[in-house]
Order: sequence, then C-alpha cells, then structure tokens
Amino acid sequence: MNMLVDGEWRTDAHETTDDDGSFQRGETTFRDKIRDEPDARFQAEAGRYHLYVSYACPWAHRTLIARRLLGLEDAISVSVVDPFRADDGWQFSPEKEGCTEDPIHGADYLRELYVRADPDATCRVTVPVLWDRKEDTIVNNESEEVLRMLDTEFGDVAEQDVDLYPEGNREDVDEIIEAIYDPINNGVYRAGFATEQEPYDEAIDDLFSALDRWDSVLENQRYLAGDRLTEADVCMFTTLVRFDQVYHTHFMCNVNQIRDYDTLWPYLRDLYQTPGIAETVNMDHIKEHYYTTHPDITPNRIVARGPDLEFEAPHGRDELAGGPPSALAPADD
Amino acid sequence: MNMLVDGEWRTDAHETTDDDGSFQRGETTFRDKIRDEPDARFQAEAGRYHLYVSYACPWAHRTLIARRLLGLEDAISVSVVDPFRADDGWQFSPEKEGCTEDPIHGADYLRELYVRADPDATCRVTVPVLWDRKEDTIVNNESEEVLRMLDTEFGDVAEQDVDLYPEGNREDVDEIIEAIYDPINNGVYRAGFATEQEPYDEAIDDLFSALDRWDSVLENQRYLAGDRLTEADVCMFTTLVRFDQVYHTHFMCNVNQIRDYDTLWPYLRDLYQTPGIAETVNMDHIKEHYYTTHPDITPNRIVARGPDLEFEAPHGRDELAGGPPSALAPADD
Repeated sequence: MNMLVDGEWRTDAHETTDDDGSFQRGETTFRDKIRDEPDARFQAEAGRYHLYVSYACPWAHRTLIARRLLGLEDAISVSVVDPFRADDGWQFSPEKEGCTEDPIHGADYLRELYVRADPDATCRVTVPVLWDRKEDTIVNNESEEVLRMLDTEFGDVAEQDVDLYPEGNREDVDEIIEAIYDPINNGVYRAGFATEQEPYDEAIDDLFSALDRWDSVLENQRYLAGDRLTEADVCMFTTLVRFDQVYHTHFMCNVNQIRDYDTLWPYLRDLYQTPGIAETVNMDHIKEHYYTTHPDITPNRIVARGPDLEFEAPHGRDELAGGPPSALAPADD
Repeated sequence: MNMLVDGEWRTDAHETTDDDGSFQRGETTFRDKIRDEPDARFQAEAGRYHLYVSYACPWAHRTLIARRLLGLEDAISVSVVDPFRADDGWQFSPEKEGCTEDPIHGADYLRELYVRADPDATCRVTVPVLWDRKEDTIVNNESEEVLRMLDTEFGDVAEQDVDLYPEGNREDVDEIIEAIYDPINNGVYRAGFATEQEPYDEAIDDLFSALDRWDSVLENQRYLAGDRLTEADVCMFTTLVRFDQVYHTHFMCNVNQIRDYDTLWPYLRDLYQTPGIAETVNMDHIKEHYYTTHPDITPNRIVARGPDLEFEAPHGRDELAGGPPSALAPADD
C-alpha cells in the first residue's frame, strides 16, 4: 500500500492498525459504475476497458475469474503487476514471468495511473483497477463492484452466457458476500496484520467459526447460495485457494488448513476444476507476494515451501445438485 | 541466547547466521561428566545435582523426560525459567505459572550461574544446565550428554529400573541420535533462522526427507531403535511434540504437519502417553517462548493459536512388538 504524504508517494512500512493493534482496511476511492444504459457515462463496450491486477491479490483475483467465466477476455484487456511490492508500491516488471507491461501508458508504477485519473489522488494504490481507455481514467477500484459490473452490465459483450448473480438468488448472494467478508476474506488479514494479541485472537475466533459453519452448510449443497455457482463462490474461492500456502503460516491462521476440512477442501477443488478458474491461479505470484512484501511480519522475506496441494484430485461434489454454468462448455449463441 | 561482549552481557538481537544466511548453532562449553566411579570428581549422588531447564526448550526437555522416566525426581531437583527470554536472556520469574525460583543462589538471571561457574565465561547462556551443589559449579550444559549421564551413571540412585541406552542397542541408538540431529532436531532451527532462501530451502528438503524416511521406518517397529524405547525416541519426541504448534508456522516448516503423517502422528501420541512424559510437556510455555522471543521472525510477538491436537487419542501402536519400559509401572526392587 502506498499513499501520498507531504507531496511524496510512500509505502506504509506498517500496515494500518488502530491504537488497539487491530488491522483497519482503508476505503477504496474510485467508485464509478459501468452501466448497460444508453446515456451512461461508462457504457459496456468491447475494447474500451482495461483491468490492472496482481495474480497475488485475492481482491483482484475475483475480477480475473469473472472476466474469464463470463467470456470477457477479448473485450477487456489485462495487465499483471509484479508480485513483489517494494517501497514504491505495485509496479510493472514485464521482464518477470507472468507479469506484463502497462500497454496504455507504459507506466512503471501503478500509482502513476492513480495520479493520471486524479491529480489530487492521495489514496492507497491497490489492485484491481478498472481503467477506461476512452475517458482515460479509473472507473472503479473496488473489487466487489468491478466483479458485479462485469457480471451484470456486459451481457451484450460477453462471449459466454454465464450469470453469476442470477435473478431469484440475488438477495442470498449479497448476504453471503457480506457474511464472509469480515470473518473470512478480510479475517485472514485481521489475523495477520494484528499487532496485539487480542485483535489477533478475535480474528482467529471469527475466521474459524465461519469456516466451520460454511463447511457444514456445504455438506448438502454444492455452492454457497445453493446449486448454482455465484459471485459468492468467486469471493470465497480467492481466499480459500491461498489459505494453506499463505494465510495458515504467514498470517498465523493455523488452527486448521483448508485441506483438513471434510467439505471445504472438496468444495475448493470443485471450484478450482471449474473450466477457466485454474488458469487464473498463479501460486508462484501468490507466494512471492505475501512472503516477500510484508517485512513487518516476515522480515527475512523467505518464501515458505508450503504443502503439496492436489487441487486436481477428484472432488466428488458432482453427486450434489447443480454444477458449473453450462455455458462454460462452448457457448451456442 | 546471550553472551558477554565488551564486558557486558548481551542478548543477540539476531540469531547467529553465516554470511550465506544459514543458521549456525554455537557450541556448548561445559562438558564435564558425572561418573559412577569411586574416584570421579562428579559422582552420582542423590540430592547433589540440580537441573535448570525451560519447558519451552526441546534440548532441556530431553533431560526433563529422562529424569522422570528414570525415577530421578527425588534425586535431582529442578528449576524452570521464564519461557519469555528478554534482552537479558533466560531469567527466573517464580511468580509466573509453571516457573520456579533458583533455590540454590536466588539468581535473577541464568547467566549469573554461568559466571559463578566460570568468572571468565563469555559463552551462550543456554538450558539445560546440570549444576553441582557440592562443587558449586556447572557440570554440563550439553543436552545429549546430560541425558546420557542421567541414563547411565545414576543406576544406584534411580528409583526406576529403566534403561534408555540398553546394551546391544547402543550403537544403533547413537547412530539414530546423530542421524536425526541435523535434519530434524536442529533442522527446524536451520529453517526458521535462515536469513536467505537457499539455506531455508536446504533445511526444508533435509527435514521433510528425514521425516518421510522415519515415518516409513516406524510403520513396522514401535520405536526408532526397534521395540524398546530409547534415548533416540526422547530426542525425537521433543521436536515432534512442538512441531505442529510452533515449527510448522513460526519456523515455516509448513510442508506437512506431524498430524498429517500416517505413522509419525500415532508414534508421537504413543510417546506422549508413555507414563510420565505428558507431565513434562508444557505447551503454554512452548508457545509463549517461541512466538514472543524471536522478534527477528515474529516481530509482533503474537502467540499463534495453533491446532487442537489430540495427544490423548488412541494410537494403536501397541499392536507392534515392544512397549514402554515395564518399570514405568511401580518399581519392584
């Protein structure tokens, strides 16, 4: 995370914590919306938008999965930043495996795009960033909102007839996304970036109660909202897939690994094996990022070896009702 | 670890590493021997010796287990230091749960005893320390040698007819103790205190190859040297019992937990349930020590929650030949 302080861009040496040692995530600041409406400022168009992501970041990963599942790969281009975030924040290292340049402005640092979008920007420089080539600005950098826009506003552009926010389930999906955010998606960060024992303990209690609860819910239904894969599963996935390699050790979320759970582990493999998802997972970037970028918690910047996870092992979840969106087979429209 | 530097006792802020970032354990310096011989300087006598330990330290833990299994609790008294090792090194905090005073000299810090034993001492101040009341000095502070002395030299004093270094097995026991030291007992430290990726990776390779190998050896025999519990098992135990709670997370030995192994995990429970061993395990001291004492690797000094390990669960190892020393039932001599 970096921000403008006294006219100079700086990376927080310390993650933001309150006086009581609890981690406080800063707000994202660009919150415009792409709308599938004729008079909207940001309209859904193929070739107009660009997504800046890190493979390492679970929030950016959500949007990368949506782009793939919805068939927006030709419509929305992508840049991948360097997984190592040094003092100057996220940067472009096209020479590094899995990384790309910034094809629009040739920026060296992601913060340059923030300043281009808003010369007075002093916010945290985070991924994902949804960029509009036409207006040369940031549309939105809030992962859940970007995910939602890709899902609901690009119907005429998408090459696959997939709907991750289906009518009839929307209230459920919204509730689940909200329910898992604090204890799970952000819970691992609350544990890892706590600087005092008490907020760490609270985060751990919340996290593992929630994992236990969802492990039990998923015994009898294939996905979080029932028998359809939704945005809620995408949000859950990007935390679970990082858990055993990173959060368990690096963030000391070490009560259980996901592979210890009777249901969450097959559920995670089921999602991983959903056509298109595996190719969005770059475990090398994930591991390099966390272990080398947070000297506050792993000062030696050594990347932990981690378990050998068999994401491709049979999951047996196809015995439950439902399945991946049928359109993930070649679309017939 | 603390040592005398320029006339002042200091704790290493950093663990000792070589230029290549690999951890180098310092030598222990007091290496006298208690001998069961009439003209020996240090003879085995009840009431003469005192053991300074930390419940946290796996090396000290070896001697505590030997003292218990061999029935030397009345013969050799014990002091337990504070699990939190601050800048002044191991200290006595009798007001803290599980800790004791120094009953011999009322010392505040363990280093005072080192200086009393040798006014010119500049060595690392470590546990265990075997102290001789009669000569008012340290006999030995090398865990394996202390373990061996308790085992072989106190026959007339011991209240239990237990032999952890049995004739006919001695060569095996020595070989196994040596074979497990570098990859396992010290291997977890080599992983945890490495300051560069390469020595960490080497330590991890060595550690998990060795664990895999012993997991396989122990499929068909109850103990490391066959069907008798020996010193080798004591040496293995004190590393394994700390593994899932501490080494897996704190030292990033996170390829597997011991509870993931088909054989090592029941083997560990079998040892834990051997009469007398469980009471030498103080997991609160173990966790507090590691997580709060090494700011180089866990700067926030937060104690990780860790898994709920069922050490008391049935182990099924009694189907193999052998068993705990029969004398661990009340001695009949």
